[in-house]
Amino acid sequence: MSTTVYSYEELFEFSVRIFTAIGCPPSDAGLAAKVLLSADLRGVDSHGIARLSGYVRLWDVQRVNAAPDISIVHETPSTATVDGDSGLGLVVAPKAMEIAIAKARNVGTGWVSVQNSNHFGIAAFHAMMALEEDMIGISMTNASPLVAPTFSVERLLGTNPICVAIPAGSQPHFVADMATTTAANGKLEILQRKNGTAPLGWIQNKDGGPSTDPHELKVGGALLPLGGDREHGSHKGYALGSVVDIFSAILSGANYGPWVPPFPAYVPMPTDMPGKGIGHFFGAMRVDAFRPAADFKKHMDQWVSRFREAKTAQGHERVIIPGDPEREMEAERRKSGIPLLGAVVDDLRSLSDKFSIQFRG
Amino acid sequence: MSTTVYSYEELFEFSVRIFTAIGCPPSDAGLAAKVLLSADLRGVDSHGIARLSGYVRLWDVQRVNAAPDISIVHETPSTATVDGDSGLGLVVAPKAMEIAIAKARNVGTGWVSVQNSNHFGIAAFHAMMALEEDMIGISMTNASPLVAPTFSVERLLGTNPICVAIPAGSQPHFVADMATTTAANGKLEILQRKNGTAPLGWIQNKDGGPSTDPHELKVGGALLPLGGDREHGSHKGYALGSVVDIFSAILSGANYGPWVPPFPAYVPMPTDMPGKGIGHFFGAMRVDAFRPAADFKKHMDQWVSRFREAKTAQGHERVIIPGDPEREMEAERRKSGIPLLGAVVDDLRSLSDKFSIQFRG
Repeated sequence: MSTTVYSYEELFEFSVRIFTAIGCPPSDAGLAAKVLLSADLRGVDSHGIARLSGYVRLWDVQRVNAAPDISIVHETPSTATVDGDSGLGLVVAPKAMEIAIAKARNVGTGWVSVQNSNHFGIAAFHAMMALEEDMIGISMTNASPLVAPTFSVERLLGTNPICVAIPAGSQPHFVADMATTTAANGKLEILQRKNGTAPLGWIQNKDGGPSTDPHELKVGGALLPLGGDREHGSHKGYALGSVVDIFSAILSGANYGPWVPPFPAYVPMPTDMPGKGIGHFFGAMRVDAFRPAADFKKHMDQWVSRFREAKTAQGHERVIIPGDPEREMEAERRKSGIPLLGAVVDDLRSLSDKFSIQFRG
Repeated sequence: MSTTVYSYEELFEFSVRIFTAIGCPPSDAGLAAKVLLSADLRGVDSHGIARLSGYVRLWDVQRVNAAPDISIVHETPSTATVDGDSGLGLVVAPKAMEIAIAKARNVGTGWVSVQNSNHFGIAAFHAMMALEEDMIGISMTNASPLVAPTFSVERLLGTNPICVAIPAGSQPHFVADMATTTAANGKLEILQRKNGTAPLGWIQNKDGGPSTDPHELKVGGALLPLGGDREHGSHKGYALGSVVDIFSAILSGANYGPWVPPFPAYVPMPTDMPGKGIGHFFGAMRVDAFRPAADFKKHMDQWVSRFREAKTAQGHERVIIPGDPEREMEAERRKSGIPLLGAVVDDLRSLSDKFSIQFRG
């Protein structure tokens, strides 16, 4: 597939202008662009600028409020519940994470559940905000139902990602950002574009049987929870996805399970929705709320080195520490630019036309 | 395999006497027996009274302190680090969870990391302590290395379980208690006793290749992280097990990764251990620190009902809510008793002889 390479700065500038055009205040437009493009930098192309037109379509149908009044609706010294006022998740999420970090400064840890939000980009951006504060960061979000619990043929959960970011000292930070499914939906989308074959254990057909057809979700199939099937622990992936759903939406008052609003603006909203928007959950834990930060980092460095130097199976060069591939990708793309597929460039060109904002397409 | 059935009360009484015989103060002996037998009641036979002789052997070699001085060594309003003073994990863990719950009462949430402890029984016992307080409970522990990270042939992680317990209203509580591996070690032990065959994806051989031999761990093989292989997301199971290790041991100052002390007393201790004992991590979050508990429970009840009533794949009667099988097992075993295998009865008879404590064996 043909790609065009853009610099980070070029895509950032364009995204800021688009977010400004839909009515985001200047600082929110910059924040949204930064969160959005952190996905492209880290190689999570499915969650980056490829989704910009999707966010705009949600604004078109008035499901996104570009100038939200984000507020705390309930709190204790270590917790808060935030109402995102239908804002872009790209803006609501980092602001909620800031609240978690501020609480952690005061009482050791901070925990924030969010209602009435939208898709928040990559979970890693928000969790990683904690790192520069010598805190552990946690972020998660629910999402519209694509995943069938073990033994179910109905899709009741989203791919519901969790990110945990843990600071190290001289070693790179530990950053685990994962969908609670066998494979992220983005990987399936790549196979759909190629008309490829999915490995067994990623998806099931409409009757709950095994399938390798990446188009299965269009005809009633479902993604499978991490584990794939019962014998390989899919009940654990299902439980993890459920915990994300409950922390994100039942603690906050957002929609959960089959009632989570869809990302594509053309998909009808569920009926009888029990909550508001989609939900997120964030945590920040000050390392020195448990032991001196220098001691923690010294042991974290030893942990990372020991795992990285483990003896590998033949054909594998090294044991990967969570966060390694994304950090290496970011270094590469900041230097050499971000390659965009033709379809994404076409999408951005449409946005350029729609808002009369220049784009080299 | 032949089994003998005992009442809960009979096994509880015997366990209390054994724990008292090794020097536990009366209230600790009762607590340890309660935690230990909660595993037998819930059907997690690998973690129940079958391990009683193992705990005694750790005491024999002076790795367990039966009368520990459990103390808080560092704290903030929402956190504490606890030194278990080499006590039984069965005693240290519920006391640490009590501290987490007390912190949550004060500031909304409480988070406790524990160093210098031993095996804590089933994670569910400790997490479930939060339920009667209308709190969400979280518990996890690291364990001696049996699991190879993705691409590694070395065993660097334990089966590192996580439990999340979430209160519902009229529906049963949600209790997800899981090893972060494809299959818990207890399931492998069952296959070892039967000389059975393990499904592909549970274990690897000493070179990192696929294997179905449940005895593989005796000759350099390893358990696999949830996901099984890279294509099915084993890097996610590996990341989850790593988070458990880091929260339990690097936050607390316990041993981590390959340095976690083994449970069997005859296995030599690792050299150059960086910390103290094994580590645990506990969390308690007051539901009403986020929203009124009645609102939370109403939505939690709807969540549970909706998932339980989902349409199932052919051959499956219902979608299981995490905690269903263990709760049903407990009801059954409280009524009809707890069946013990001949080998376990023999073990208890040896303890009976060793301490001259009567046992119907």
